Amino acid sequence: MASSPEERLKALGITLPEWLAPVSGYVGILRTGNLLIVSGQLCYGPEAKLAAVGRLGAEVTIEQGRFAARCCAINVLGRVRSEIGSLDRVTCVLRLGGFLLTTWDFTDHAAVMIGATEVMTDVFGDAGSHARCTIGVASAPLGSTVQVDAMVEIA
Amino acid sequence: MASSPEERLKALGITLPEWLAPVSGYVGILRTGNLLIVSGQLCYGPEAKLAAVGRLGAEVTIEQGRFAARCCAINVLGRVRSEIGSLDRVTCVLRLGGFLLTTWDFTDHAAVMIGATEVMTDVFGDAGSHARCTIGVASAPLGSTVQVDAMVEIA
Amino acid sequence: MASSPEERLKALGITLPEWLAPVSGYVGILRTGNLLIVSGQLCYGPEAKLAAVGRLGAEVTIEQGRFAARCCAINVLGRVRSEIGSLDRVTCVLRLGGFLLTTWDFTDHAAVMIGATEVMTDVFGDAGSHARCTIGVASAPLGSTVQVDAMVEIA
Repeated sequence: MASSPEERLKALGITLPEWLAPVSGYVGILRTGNLLIVSGQLCYGPEAKLAAVGRLGAEVTIEQGRFAARCCAINVLGRVRSEIGSLDRVTCVLRLGGFLLTTWDFTDHAAVMIGATEVMTDVFGDAGSHARCTIGVASAPLGSTVQVDAMVEIA
Repeated sequence: MASSPEERLKALGITLPEWLAPVSGYVGILRTGNLLIVSGQLCYGPEAKLAAVGRLGAEVTIEQGRFAARCCAINVLGRVRSEIGSLDRVTCVLRLGGFLLTTWDFTDHAAVMIGATEVMTDVFGDAGSHARCTIGVASAPLGSTVQVDAMVEIA
Repeated sequence: MASSPEERLKALGITLPEWLAPVSGYVGILRTGNLLIVSGQLCYGPEAKLAAVGRLGAEVTIEQGRFAARCCAINVLGRVRSEIGSLDRVTCVLRLGGFLLTTWDFTDHAAVMIGATEVMTDVFGDAGSHARCTIGVASAPLGSTVQVDAMVEIA
């Protein structure tokens, strides 16, 4: 079995994005001591296009939402690697925040956010088991169906 | 007057839940150094049923919402005790996040979240005076009217 | 060029509020070690009135929202100075959370939150470049169009 996060990433066939969405005035990731604070990542997927736009419960299916959550998590990892060079320096994924664009009566947030959670546990193993809080939002930047922010601990 | 959080809890007649909602892939609480990060807790109350489902401003009254917020806070304490064995090891409740399922024109978030805040100040005294941010969400996991997450400092 | 945050604040003509919204049970700002956790600040502006009430995408324009976001950020700084005496002790603005009251199809969150971000970079320079997460909320305390919370590092 692959022994490091970077090796697991390769074994899983996950490619981290070369293109990271530019931000204005603020930063995509910030490091203080052994803590990384990752800004909210939209669900940019292949070809730097949003994987899903619109509301779960209406225009977007749970399957599409789960893939969008996966894309967000991969973008989180892209930010982490761009900041510290290698995912192998991560000691613990502390927390994910999940922000899902939904109709008011949508209730299956867990079935969507598992797409982000699985990326972390697949890549980091036990060190990827994070705390999490998922909510439904009324609107989202650029209409991104999913946004994920994170706190990550490094050695 | 009762002198420790565990004694105050008993004096207040608060019983922490034996049943904690299972989570998939992530963890209900995570510890790093002297910091506990508590995942979003839904308003499970007596008999492990959600205390309120639906929107403040429509199906759910402020009184019901306040009780639901109280249940969330008690579940936060349940997670804390399950992680560190005793609430007496808590030195400070740093922050609560409050996520209320509401109609778009609901404005009385403070009257609901006081239900969570009071649990912390009743149990921990000055050490329970936390920072807080409360918002209205468009949808919630399982329709839970209130969700509360937390950061807690321990000795 | 002005060399300290307090001097820049003066050069920018920004006056921090003397009136800070009272909170019930919790605290407006909390300090632990070299970390300040700032509670969600509503968009109180001149004369302690909310700068904007209602939804972006409907009753409130982007320009009004941007000003409201600026007010929130100034209130964050008011909390910081009230806690530690001088903004010159700030070493880094770690993170801003932006909570915008919007219609469900609003997508231009960045054009609003820049109003909060600019306050931080104008006052602190590079030390003001924070991580950020902005979402659309379904409802807000008192109908405040913008709410901003923060984490700030001090020496």
